[in-house]
Amino acid sequence: MTGEQRARRYAVIGTGAVGGFYGARLQQAGRSVHFLARSDREVIARQGLDVRSKDGDFSLFPVAVYGDVREMPRCDVVIVALKTTHNALLAELLPPVLADDGVVVMLQNGLGSEEAAAAVVGAERVVGGLSFVCAHKLGPGKVDHLDYGQVTLGAYAEGYAPQGVTAATAAVATDLRAAGIAVEVAADLLQARWRKLVWNIPFNGLSVILDERTNRMMADPAIRTLARALMEEVVQGAAASGRTIPETFIERMLEHTQNMIPYHTSMKLDYDAGRPLEIEAIYSRPLAMAAAAGVDLPRIAVLTRQLQFLDRRRRGL
Amino acid sequence: MTGEQRARRYAVIGTGAVGGFYGARLQQAGRSVHFLARSDREVIARQGLDVRSKDGDFSLFPVAVYGDVREMPRCDVVIVALKTTHNALLAELLPPVLADDGVVVMLQNGLGSEEAAAAVVGAERVVGGLSFVCAHKLGPGKVDHLDYGQVTLGAYAEGYAPQGVTAATAAVATDLRAAGIAVEVAADLLQARWRKLVWNIPFNGLSVILDERTNRMMADPAIRTLARALMEEVVQGAAASGRTIPETFIERMLEHTQNMIPYHTSMKLDYDAGRPLEIEAIYSRPLAMAAAAGVDLPRIAVLTRQLQFLDRRRRGL
Repeated sequence: MTGEQRARRYAVIGTGAVGGFYGARLQQAGRSVHFLARSDREVIARQGLDVRSKDGDFSLFPVAVYGDVREMPRCDVVIVALKTTHNALLAELLPPVLADDGVVVMLQNGLGSEEAAAAVVGAERVVGGLSFVCAHKLGPGKVDHLDYGQVTLGAYAEGYAPQGVTAATAAVATDLRAAGIAVEVAADLLQARWRKLVWNIPFNGLSVILDERTNRMMADPAIRTLARALMEEVVQGAAASGRTIPETFIERMLEHTQNMIPYHTSMKLDYDAGRPLEIEAIYSRPLAMAAAAGVDLPRIAVLTRQLQFLDRRRRGL
Repeated sequence: MTGEQRARRYAVIGTGAVGGFYGARLQQAGRSVHFLARSDREVIARQGLDVRSKDGDFSLFPVAVYGDVREMPRCDVVIVALKTTHNALLAELLPPVLADDGVVVMLQNGLGSEEAAAAVVGAERVVGGLSFVCAHKLGPGKVDHLDYGQVTLGAYAEGYAPQGVTAATAAVATDLRAAGIAVEVAADLLQARWRKLVWNIPFNGLSVILDERTNRMMADPAIRTLARALMEEVVQGAAASGRTIPETFIERMLEHTQNMIPYHTSMKLDYDAGRPLEIEAIYSRPLAMAAAAGVDLPRIAVLTRQLQFLDRRRRGL
């Protein structure tokens, strides 16, 4: 990774709500940011980026936006903010844009992102990223940031051996903090990913299956009981991977969800828009990781099967 | 129970699809049948009963229909074809209509029906009934019989001790067979109830949760896998009650469902009509019976919680 002699140059691969939000914050803080967009490229080139945010609205113009990675400059930090359902494209997207000593930050949900990137660029150049943000795309280049925004970073190594704080994670954390983002660097990336699944597994799935927002689900005693039981299975899955998540974390997540503003999860937004659901990353891989350690997670398996059916039906498959 | 000196007199409590179908068959075969109906009473009194059936349509007029059990004659056999969600009414409905030596046939789904009737009339006067019929109500006094039709009867005793074939079950079986109904008398009622749950637990719940018919669910590999896993949990629940259901029965049910005509389950029809769902009988009681024996059925518990939420939301509770 390039040292301190010049500001780090960023690429954002996938300019949806997440990529648009963090990329805009970095550019607003003075970093050089290069955005990859597909269908939205022309509108963003013409109008820039608009962020409506609970921390204050802002607009950026001009924005360096590209429709093809081969037109982009090589970047020190490549933030991948695609849906995991597009990770088959990484082999084509990453090599042209990554500087020789650059790093890739996989800002995605679930499990499997780092392995997918490592297969293309090597494990030593991969950083895991988890965003805790309520945001959605209002239109091309238009992001609505409703709540939260913090990021957790963690260096990746094959088999998820904990790496502590590395030069790369520290450098990206510095830039994000300068852009006003709260950042935690996790010593153990896999534990951070399992912790995030404690929320994602119950609420992403149930929001699609029950066609409901978080607040209405949390208001129902049956769903509170079910969400807790699912969270306990996630904790068992983490334990099967040798990661301990304390019971108090479950309490904290439930309380936190009760106090969230009414919210459609990212999976619900994908479902309503007819996009493929991130079932593989959020459900199938955690199940497979636990199963490889001999641990059965039956409640999570039920949600997985229901979601697979709904996803196929919604997309006419 | 009255002997052979005169034909047995029947009451049908609840003249919906199930009560209307079996009651009409009995009357068609020459039995004296007295129907209790609530909102449909006037139409049935005026127009009789109409059965559209895959075995041949038929109509009955006149029909002895009542709006109040206190107007009905005392009957040798009282067939209760109410939804289980109305079983709180049994204390009021059964005593006026049951002859001194009569029996009550609880033609209902799930578990708990016999206990509810026994609390009113005594266990020795209760027979369990299971109907395997695809039928729905087209309107007041109008039944559409799509497929199947067989009935399983089993004498009840406290704690579900197997009773073999009793005089009462043999007598009711004789009358139903004379009416063209295939009847099996189960020596062990509780085993028969668990066997029926092997189908009802996966397909009633999933049809509501996924808003889908049986054929479309069975066409999906994820739902076939889930249905099988749920059936295996029902078999574990039966085992916890000391009842053995062979693995081949699961295969038979899956194959059978694949070959059924496209079908909305009774729970889906209830849901779409805004009626309360039979969650207690089909889900909560089996779960509780297994839990009392120390057996956890986590997949069934997930469906139960989802259904409780959907039922409350649908009815605005």
